[in-house]
Amino acid sequence: MINSVSEMQKICSGIKGTIGFVPTMGYLHEGHLSLVRAARKQCSNVVVSIFVNPYQFSPNEDLALYPRNIDRDVKLLTELEVDFIFFPTEQEMYPEGYKTWVTVDKITQILCGRSRPTHFRGVITIVTKLMNIVDPDYMFMGEKDFQQLVVLQQMAKDLNFRTKIIGCPIVREEDGLAMSSRNKYLSPSARKDALCLHNSLLLSKKLFKQEIISSNKIIAEMSNLIENNNGIVDYIEVVDSQTLKHLAELRTGCRILVAVIIENTRLIDNMEM
Amino acid sequence: MINSVSEMQKICSGIKGTIGFVPTMGYLHEGHLSLVRAARKQCSNVVVSIFVNPYQFSPNEDLALYPRNIDRDVKLLTELEVDFIFFPTEQEMYPEGYKTWVTVDKITQILCGRSRPTHFRGVITIVTKLMNIVDPDYMFMGEKDFQQLVVLQQMAKDLNFRTKIIGCPIVREEDGLAMSSRNKYLSPSARKDALCLHNSLLLSKKLFKQEIISSNKIIAEMSNLIENNNGIVDYIEVVDSQTLKHLAELRTGCRILVAVIIENTRLIDNMEM
Repeated sequence: MINSVSEMQKICSGIKGTIGFVPTMGYLHEGHLSLVRAARKQCSNVVVSIFVNPYQFSPNEDLALYPRNIDRDVKLLTELEVDFIFFPTEQEMYPEGYKTWVTVDKITQILCGRSRPTHFRGVITIVTKLMNIVDPDYMFMGEKDFQQLVVLQQMAKDLNFRTKIIGCPIVREEDGLAMSSRNKYLSPSARKDALCLHNSLLLSKKLFKQEIISSNKIIAEMSNLIENNNGIVDYIEVVDSQTLKHLAELRTGCRILVAVIIENTRLIDNMEM
Repeated sequence: MINSVSEMQKICSGIKGTIGFVPTMGYLHEGHLSLVRAARKQCSNVVVSIFVNPYQFSPNEDLALYPRNIDRDVKLLTELEVDFIFFPTEQEMYPEGYKTWVTVDKITQILCGRSRPTHFRGVITIVTKLMNIVDPDYMFMGEKDFQQLVVLQQMAKDLNFRTKIIGCPIVREEDGLAMSSRNKYLSPSARKDALCLHNSLLLSKKLFKQEIISSNKIIAEMSNLIENNNGIVDYIEVVDSQTLKHLAELRTGCRILVAVIIENTRLIDNMEM
């Protein structure tokens, strides 16, 4: 386990062969591990970072509560034969006098960006830093945070990073709930209610197969299902998978993204049509 | 001469030995060439970029007029045995749909940042891109744009770039005027008036040697000299060389920065005390 930026950077610059990188905030679940396995399969060296990045949380969010279990994380990553675990302190990543931010216009101000206005600035900045430290050939990210994936691909392209960012499929619990460290917050009854995200997406797919293509119509049906299961809809949107642009009508390959508050926990999910 | 980002990136990633990089907007003068010589002396490979970056100009500034002479630039760089000249098009650097910006807080909002509010965002972003394309060990910049040098050093440190940014001394005409591509705009009489920048800095140094250390007192004397030579002061500031923080009293190693409008041309200069 490496805590120092300069040591991690030195090690990575000396690595022969390809580097696959998986950035995480720890408290690893099967979703993260699927990314590590993809990296292990494709690359000769695998680096995983664990850093709960304070700047992607808003003041009213769950930074202090965010679950952590570094011993368990290290054990899981060791079992998967990860070469290096990067576990820096906040002081290492944001030393006193830190002043630099990376932003992406437009696609960060919609969807999750509306209710979390500084979230993406924090995500983009920490990933820029991590990419400069690790200099990976490939970076693996889950499609669960689909907007995050598109935003970071835009940043990497715009800033001419050589790293290729690979989106990997959502991993779900047996009953369909998308895996997330935040699922831990749910009470047993809320855990059942939370199935409404996935079920509403399955419903949209069913309706699309019945040739209903009006976004408004499908969103209305999904909202009903979610509200009938005690969910509060933050957003449901039909978007183009590349540009995240709003679509008035569904088409093959488009994506529906949902954010729902269950109890006090905000959960997200999405599905390709 | 290389025009394509991907080609430049591929070449640089295959280079053995150190890379020294000099980013320029072309129309090269002895100031630029001194940076190239420093790079040539210190590094086994030298890359120079020529790109008039539109995003560091405000709408009311001189982008369209900015002087260009690529043939002469190439000849000068060839004489200095530069290995690669990177001369990308605007389309290559900012393709359609470009959305990403890099900013540095606080130290970009003072001094030149006050009269040029989007200037540094443009400079920082293009240099981030160029550093990712060239991946230099060392980048060489003139101390004439002293705030730019400090801002880019902050960015490179904050974003964990491995590149070391080296500031090189100001190169002056025989009569003391700091070299700048914008000197070309000056009429013969304005060219004489423009000496007031350097002369005011020499005056400050003389006063400091006489143990006058009040910033206000010294700035007043400098303003007088500049105004008596038809200059309009944009700013004169005494700052800490590392942090650019305003100093009420001069001390050894501090820097005085000036920006003055001569005719319609804004010129800058600075000197270490």
